[in-house]
Amino acid sequence: MAALPERGADALAVLRRQHIELPSWAFGNSGTRFKVFAQPGVPRDPWEKVADSAEVHRLTGVAPTVALHIPWDRVDDYAALAAHARDLGIGVGTINANVFQDDDYRLGSVTNPDPGVRRKAIDHLLECVDVMDATGSRDLKLWFADGTNYPGQDDLRARQDRLAEALSEVYDRLGPDQRLLLEYKLFEPAFYATDVPDWGTAYAHCLELGEKAVVCVDTGHHAAHTNIEFIVAFLLRAGKLGAFDFNSRFYADDDLMVGAADPFQLFRIMYEVVRGGGLAADTGVAFMLDQCHNIEPKIAGQIRSVMNVQEATAKALLVDADALAAAQREGDVLAANAALMDAYNTDVRPLLADLRRDQGLDPDPMAAHARSGYAERVAEERRGGAQAGWGA
Amino acid sequence: MAALPERGADALAVLRRQHIELPSWAFGNSGTRFKVFAQPGVPRDPWEKVADSAEVHRLTGVAPTVALHIPWDRVDDYAALAAHARDLGIGVGTINANVFQDDDYRLGSVTNPDPGVRRKAIDHLLECVDVMDATGSRDLKLWFADGTNYPGQDDLRARQDRLAEALSEVYDRLGPDQRLLLEYKLFEPAFYATDVPDWGTAYAHCLELGEKAVVCVDTGHHAAHTNIEFIVAFLLRAGKLGAFDFNSRFYADDDLMVGAADPFQLFRIMYEVVRGGGLAADTGVAFMLDQCHNIEPKIAGQIRSVMNVQEATAKALLVDADALAAAQREGDVLAANAALMDAYNTDVRPLLADLRRDQGLDPDPMAAHARSGYAERVAEERRGGAQAGWGA
Amino acid sequence: MAALPERGADALAVLRRQHIELPSWAFGNSGTRFKVFAQPGVPRDPWEKVADSAEVHRLTGVAPTVALHIPWDRVDDYAALAAHARDLGIGVGTINANVFQDDDYRLGSVTNPDPGVRRKAIDHLLECVDVMDATGSRDLKLWFADGTNYPGQDDLRARQDRLAEALSEVYDRLGPDQRLLLEYKLFEPAFYATDVPDWGTAYAHCLELGEKAVVCVDTGHHAAHTNIEFIVAFLLRAGKLGAFDFNSRFYADDDLMVGAADPFQLFRIMYEVVRGGGLAADTGVAFMLDQCHNIEPKIAGQIRSVMNVQEATAKALLVDADALAAAQREGDVLAANAALMDAYNTDVRPLLADLRRDQGLDPDPMAAHARSGYAERVAEERRGGAQAGWGA
Amino acid sequence: MAALPERGADALAVLRRQHIELPSWAFGNSGTRFKVFAQPGVPRDPWEKVADSAEVHRLTGVAPTVALHIPWDRVDDYAALAAHARDLGIGVGTINANVFQDDDYRLGSVTNPDPGVRRKAIDHLLECVDVMDATGSRDLKLWFADGTNYPGQDDLRARQDRLAEALSEVYDRLGPDQRLLLEYKLFEPAFYATDVPDWGTAYAHCLELGEKAVVCVDTGHHAAHTNIEFIVAFLLRAGKLGAFDFNSRFYADDDLMVGAADPFQLFRIMYEVVRGGGLAADTGVAFMLDQCHNIEPKIAGQIRSVMNVQEATAKALLVDADALAAAQREGDVLAANAALMDAYNTDVRPLLADLRRDQGLDPDPMAAHARSGYAERVAEERRGGAQAGWGA
Repeated sequence: MAALPERGADALAVLRRQHIELPSWAFGNSGTRFKVFAQPGVPRDPWEKVADSAEVHRLTGVAPTVALHIPWDRVDDYAALAAHARDLGIGVGTINANVFQDDDYRLGSVTNPDPGVRRKAIDHLLECVDVMDATGSRDLKLWFADGTNYPGQDDLRARQDRLAEALSEVYDRLGPDQRLLLEYKLFEPAFYATDVPDWGTAYAHCLELGEKAVVCVDTGHHAAHTNIEFIVAFLLRAGKLGAFDFNSRFYADDDLMVGAADPFQLFRIMYEVVRGGGLAADTGVAFMLDQCHNIEPKIAGQIRSVMNVQEATAKALLVDADALAAAQREGDVLAANAALMDAYNTDVRPLLADLRRDQGLDPDPMAAHARSGYAERVAEERRGGAQAGWGA
Repeated sequence: MAALPERGADALAVLRRQHIELPSWAFGNSGTRFKVFAQPGVPRDPWEKVADSAEVHRLTGVAPTVALHIPWDRVDDYAALAAHARDLGIGVGTINANVFQDDDYRLGSVTNPDPGVRRKAIDHLLECVDVMDATGSRDLKLWFADGTNYPGQDDLRARQDRLAEALSEVYDRLGPDQRLLLEYKLFEPAFYATDVPDWGTAYAHCLELGEKAVVCVDTGHHAAHTNIEFIVAFLLRAGKLGAFDFNSRFYADDDLMVGAADPFQLFRIMYEVVRGGGLAADTGVAFMLDQCHNIEPKIAGQIRSVMNVQEATAKALLVDADALAAAQREGDVLAANAALMDAYNTDVRPLLADLRRDQGLDPDPMAAHARSGYAERVAEERRGGAQAGWGA
Repeated sequence: MAALPERGADALAVLRRQHIELPSWAFGNSGTRFKVFAQPGVPRDPWEKVADSAEVHRLTGVAPTVALHIPWDRVDDYAALAAHARDLGIGVGTINANVFQDDDYRLGSVTNPDPGVRRKAIDHLLECVDVMDATGSRDLKLWFADGTNYPGQDDLRARQDRLAEALSEVYDRLGPDQRLLLEYKLFEPAFYATDVPDWGTAYAHCLELGEKAVVCVDTGHHAAHTNIEFIVAFLLRAGKLGAFDFNSRFYADDDLMVGAADPFQLFRIMYEVVRGGGLAADTGVAFMLDQCHNIEPKIAGQIRSVMNVQEATAKALLVDADALAAAQREGDVLAANAALMDAYNTDVRPLLADLRRDQGLDPDPMAAHARSGYAERVAEERRGGAQAGWGA
Repeated sequence: MAALPERGADALAVLRRQHIELPSWAFGNSGTRFKVFAQPGVPRDPWEKVADSAEVHRLTGVAPTVALHIPWDRVDDYAALAAHARDLGIGVGTINANVFQDDDYRLGSVTNPDPGVRRKAIDHLLECVDVMDATGSRDLKLWFADGTNYPGQDDLRARQDRLAEALSEVYDRLGPDQRLLLEYKLFEPAFYATDVPDWGTAYAHCLELGEKAVVCVDTGHHAAHTNIEFIVAFLLRAGKLGAFDFNSRFYADDDLMVGAADPFQLFRIMYEVVRGGGLAADTGVAFMLDQCHNIEPKIAGQIRSVMNVQEATAKALLVDADALAAAQREGDVLAANAALMDAYNTDVRPLLADLRRDQGLDPDPMAAHARSGYAERVAEERRGGAQAGWGA
């Protein structure tokens, strides 16, 4: 059985190469249907979003890429945007397609009963692959707001046919090293039936498409009581877990900071990731944040979120796998549970502070950010112009 | 035991005087945090909203008042707006206060930690009572978006103190025939703790305030699995049911057309209303719609919703109370359930068509609306200007 | 567009051949963990359960088979039990395996960490196929209570491996015309992770096994807010819907009479069945009841349940498919919804009464049962002996 | 701002006097409706249950009382049972009434439509007060399984009348220093409407009864998404929080070990207890466990549960109240959240080990229990006889 110091060393090796991707849209204004509260210093364009993202990486050391959302982050020259990111020490990550903010999409995008609207939506998805080619992105993330609000509104089965057809066309356009991440969501904005409502639906479509299609698990997109770590374990076993969209929620898709609502759940998820090889050096699993900082400052919110993932990962890596396996084998329920809880109850903040010092970082990224004056500086610089936000 | 025809006659008498209040905001554009889809012909100001509301009443005969939302429906001269409504055959109903769409309310309105913001919010509530004086409205409906997104963000108990203080000040301002309706909601836009999250909280505050404070039950504001008709029965028994905000939902606060998601639940609710005297001639219960027609046309959506409430009410009135009571007394589970279901399974559409003919209305309000050309006319007339919507 | 009478005639043709399978265990005592209330006349052995089941078929005409549960319904001579059923006018249907009521299964059956327990469980499943051979049953229904109560208790992924291995061995034992129905359930009796918790898991295992493995949808086994009809539509499209276990619930797996809690949901499910061909003459979908009559009389409870399924089916068959398709094609949300609701709001009880008269049955099976004296007779005859129940 | 060592010292003072009450029934066999798995060494009578409870107190030092359940723990001489407890170093705590396990209670106890059944139930409750007089217990805990399974089955409002009448009669029987704890529960065993389903109902009845009636919060008895700590804060503010029944759940009323499913929630609850004065020296709040150890050993399960409560309490006591209040006052969302999380993320196990050493206890009660041989000894001694369990 490995002693704690040894597990700590192994954990550090994995934590050192951890890679958490930030979402460009987390830096823009966001809110609920009731109100979007504007914040000072919010970026006005993709270039400023990339800069904020780079600041988070500078302080945490584990957030080296930023995901883009098209058309929110549409620019004339994507190669230039990628170069801008590189200059700031990060890279462009996943490309997120957006086919839900045009008036044409009122009744759906790729599953719309109108073939013209479907064509438009598919064309946008294909355009996103062009962007990937320009930025060198590996992953195309597809989340469809498609669904219906009322029973009878549209034919559930026909919408699956249309979905399969659209996915197939996009899949065929992918380059040899590109992947399609299919995301599912229980509800919102569709309020009766969503066309990709659960992991089973996403998995089934990915199976049919082929090996470049994998599932994206957004931790806020499940029915109450869903055991998310089970899904993670299942998809890893099936070789179909492609990515996480991390956030947390007490109710619906609240998009709170990951780890804020149920840190124990995040730990259990990360434990299954470790158990299933999802943190191996050659992992195909992408770890992304997907959150809305509606009332808290956005850059600080991202830093805290990154740290929360790090802490959950560290705890998961500290689980005494031998002791756990032994207790499981013997059917010792309390000992097996205790083996997991011992790791969870450990305060890993000193370990992570050491890691940061090792990497030449401030051991307390939140304090370092506060001292840096970055927030004040951009609040000053970014006066005027339209702040970016959802839909802008 | 009353024979069906007799119960039908009794039912008709109640249905004839049914009063369903429409929300002015249902005629404006609405949507989710992802997208608000604009619709042709949407009103550009409160006067046009009142006109649309009057059209629904003209066709259904049971929607003689329209509720206003301040500041969305702010006008210089409320008496003139009330006169405009009267000219169109309806009246102004409940005044809804809105203290959630100003940047100052980011951390709450009447429960905000900042006393200055609380003062501003209370002043708005008091202004709403002024509006009531001007329009002759009986009811002030208070829904607070107040709450917190993160554990620790604010002190749960102190927020209750602040809430109680604000309610008390507003209550004291009410005239002798005015009431305060306190609405509760589980979550959204607050994602950790809402300050009035459930009927118990609303009830407790109303008890403390006095007899002019009563609870408003929004049918979409409960945790999953909540038995809403129990709450209705309980509040009626306690004399504290003030009003309904009707809508329906499959998931969260979806604000779909009432009766669309679970018509059986609506029937059970209306049965408890009947059972508890809430449809008596002197009822103090207000029946209001509170919905968002995000993808369907708004006037037609309101007509359908009114009809859905009528149908549920008719079924509730057709329950054979004697047979039901006898089966309940004998502990005959299946017979008691069947007594209720017999009414529910009855097709009441012919009965309601008769009622409408009796009242000189078209028996099919949806078809009458389609034939009327109203929608096409306003779509033509209301070109230009900014359409009204949530927050406008 | 078909006129109502024509649709009514088509509906009658389908309703005439409807086949609803009854569960033998519904006639035994059942209850909650708090209390099992005994009822007079409850069967004392499988032979009496079959007799009660035949009585339900005699009165309803659409329940010609009874499912068995092994070992609850273990007899020495299954061929004799099948002959007994035939003598009473019915047949033996699905065989349900039970690997959850032996002390050895405390930590699971086919997923137990102990290989000896797994062997015992698999052997029981194989024995069930022997029973099928003896009774001529087509379907083996597998529901596993397997899962864990505490995080860490056992390895989620290893349990999937064990599950796959067990399923594979049983699958290989099936005869050419036999099927394996894999049922999923969110939780209970496992309270942390269930090994087959959702349709996705069941579907994935069935895909891997082959075409004789299909999914069984128990309508009470989903997370709150799950759109069951979507799952039905999806599985029918994929050719993997094997069967229903019908019941209803307001909360968890309440096992109330089907249609009692949400008749509109049952209608929507049956509509998707119709839409997807699940009621075609050559359908591979089995329609079974799986309920507990904890407080209501069991035979009458079964009759009511059968009638509830008939009513929902009749309404689903009355949907004007042409009108619905036209409205959907045009994106007319309200008209499409109305096309569905028109059928739902129709009172189909007269139609079903006609059907029964046509078939030489009493138009009111509940009243006929009450008049028959059957319940009183068996209450008299079945004094003494141990009543059957869950676990007996 | 208090430094950590000082807060640690304050925390220790409170932890030293912590009082967690154990439930006698946790030591008996329990299970689900599917199966009760028997365990070796399970008590055969109340005397042995008291002995097991004393063993948990001997090892943890904070569990000095055991709650009884009548009639499960009915003995001829309650004074002798209390003396037996005293001899073993503990006392008899709360008396739990049980009016749900008699065939007469099929349709309810105090809310049954049959007045004879109601009389019987009330008489049992009054008998429980007699037991309290004999044991010197302060609290009578009332949980009613009463409710209905089907809409229409009984009259919701009449059942409230009957409930109020029964409660009033019992309340009047209480001695000057006795209290009535009214517990609520969303569902199970009733599956449509429960007569005391939520805190609002319990609170309203307690208000009407008087100051000796207070609410008992069972942490497993809420709808999904309910913010329990809000209820705790609200009831403490209103002076109506009487007691906790601690356990944890992922789904329904799973009755898992407290803190096992969501340790962060338990911490938030304990924080509100601290904030509201519920751990003050003169607190009127009783802290009880109410769990079922279906698959894990019972004594060890109780020890682990006691430790989980201790750990959550310790963390709650370590919250830097000054820092938290300052951040809340300033509206600094992230700093306020961090103040709470800093305490939660602290590993308090060393602190509690110190506390135990101080009190002459083994710092690791689980290990001490394993070494003690108690489990093996009682497994040997308690052969023969009927094991106690739910319903025995």
